[in-house]
Amino acid sequence: MSFSKFLQSFSAKNNVFYGLFEQIAENIIQMNKLFIGVINSSDANFRKDEVKKIKDYEHQNDNLTHEVFIELGKNFITPFDREDIHALASALDDVADYIDSSSKKIVLYRLGELDNEIHKLAAINDEAVAEVKLAVYGLRNMKDTAKIRESCIKINGIENRADDIFEYGLVSILENEKEAAMIIKKKDLLQSMEIVTDKCEDVADVIESILVKYA
Amino acid sequence: MSFSKFLQSFSAKNNVFYGLFEQIAENIIQMNKLFIGVINSSDANFRKDEVKKIKDYEHQNDNLTHEVFIELGKNFITPFDREDIHALASALDDVADYIDSSSKKIVLYRLGELDNEIHKLAAINDEAVAEVKLAVYGLRNMKDTAKIRESCIKINGIENRADDIFEYGLVSILENEKEAAMIIKKKDLLQSMEIVTDKCEDVADVIESILVKYA
Amino acid sequence: MSFSKFLQSFSAKNNVFYGLFEQIAENIIQMNKLFIGVINSSDANFRKDEVKKIKDYEHQNDNLTHEVFIELGKNFITPFDREDIHALASALDDVADYIDSSSKKIVLYRLGELDNEIHKLAAINDEAVAEVKLAVYGLRNMKDTAKIRESCIKINGIENRADDIFEYGLVSILENEKEAAMIIKKKDLLQSMEIVTDKCEDVADVIESILVKYA
Repeated sequence: MSFSKFLQSFSAKNNVFYGLFEQIAENIIQMNKLFIGVINSSDANFRKDEVKKIKDYEHQNDNLTHEVFIELGKNFITPFDREDIHALASALDDVADYIDSSSKKIVLYRLGELDNEIHKLAAINDEAVAEVKLAVYGLRNMKDTAKIRESCIKINGIENRADDIFEYGLVSILENEKEAAMIIKKKDLLQSMEIVTDKCEDVADVIESILVKYA
Repeated sequence: MSFSKFLQSFSAKNNVFYGLFEQIAENIIQMNKLFIGVINSSDANFRKDEVKKIKDYEHQNDNLTHEVFIELGKNFITPFDREDIHALASALDDVADYIDSSSKKIVLYRLGELDNEIHKLAAINDEAVAEVKLAVYGLRNMKDTAKIRESCIKINGIENRADDIFEYGLVSILENEKEAAMIIKKKDLLQSMEIVTDKCEDVADVIESILVKYA
Repeated sequence: MSFSKFLQSFSAKNNVFYGLFEQIAENIIQMNKLFIGVINSSDANFRKDEVKKIKDYEHQNDNLTHEVFIELGKNFITPFDREDIHALASALDDVADYIDSSSKKIVLYRLGELDNEIHKLAAINDEAVAEVKLAVYGLRNMKDTAKIRESCIKINGIENRADDIFEYGLVSILENEKEAAMIIKKKDLLQSMEIVTDKCEDVADVIESILVKYA
């Protein structure tokens, strides 16, 4: 880095990171809302349209994540550790990816009415992404770290509940479905949805590690 | 980090990391011993109880891993590179996770007598976690780096043998089982157990990279 | 690091990294060429021999990757950020791993004539690894960063096409195959091959992040 670039980086309003993360978190919220719409309808055309909207948000988040990495390359001074910014961006990107890919599977596999566990997991994912948003917004001024930490703890609890529903759903598929293709399709969707809370937990872990350093 | 915190961090007995890693490695040894007990019995109630004990160790290790990250946030001076401590904690955490999740599948899928390859993999995992423990204990005084390196090399060899058993077991399931659900259950367990040695290899890789820097 | 080691590291021709990455990229090209040979033949013995050759390259790359990490431990000054060198080596290693493991599955599962999508994915992977090689070679003198960036963008486009072929192939397997074991075998191969372009995309991402910092 040249000396002028170095100096310039000091004046950079590195708030840019907060704004990017907040926008990414907002988009994730919208994606899961659309996802719930998809599973509540069994109209194939409606589903297709909504899945396309989810994809659009996912593309937006890809671009925002890319911007985070560009800014990370340009800024010498960052609001928190570079490795934490990188890990946070990656974890949030993963959350969006798995909501997107779950929605795609529903259309791709032409699944009709969906099992009860799918509805339960979607609702649980909604709780998880809401807490992710709260925690991400808390980072900007770090005033109420107890509240951020609370969101992180809640996400851990939510993830445990998601695990239980996933297991119950998986066993039920394996016991009730007879056709190999259908077992595989349903297991695939269930797994993809369960990873959404796993990735929210990754977000919580990064944020907790930021809190430890800056509290 | 404030200046007083900075100074304080120098006096921190950063041995704390060694103790945490050693405890984590000990717990992993116990987990795989319990796992072998689970597969040697086909009594559903006994299995359930033992799987619960494995889960308890896994929770303990989660807490110990969490402590590693907390200490990493608090300590400015660490016994080896921060990224290596992070990677080592993550890899050990993964080893424990996959032993735990393998044991859970046995109960969840109500598997009866287990295939020969399951017994072979469990024995191989036992060898792997024993070498992991030796390598981790070697880090504290770094006196005999040749011995640490030897454990790392052994783990690589063990992982290759696990691969072969996994492949043999998988092909045998695909050729002999007819029912889709049973194929999926058995494949799932086999895969989860095979990942245990993969993760031990990750541990060995991190430790080797520590040796390169500090030898 | 001792002071003499520190001084010595300045004189280290850290070009060593370029050479290692270039050799790794060359080997990957050869691996995918051999892979295309494997899928174009259905002679079981020929396949077995060629898969062994792919494995040899994979071993070579493992050793080269290991050398990268050793050099990383020894050199204080590196041509680009240590974390980027680490990430680049890991991503290239993954590309090789998935070509190797895809080829292994063909022999292991005794698959006969392969589906059209397998041939399409192999051709797409060929495009991807060619761009990976171009991008990797561009790093040495960084003269034409626009051309490096172009390769990265192409890889992203290639990965999107691979996704589409993968999805089409997966749905076709799920709709046409009736036997559980065959569905699982074919899905497994398709997935493993699709991950090759995913990992090429990871390579492109790391290289783009290097460009941002050093352009």
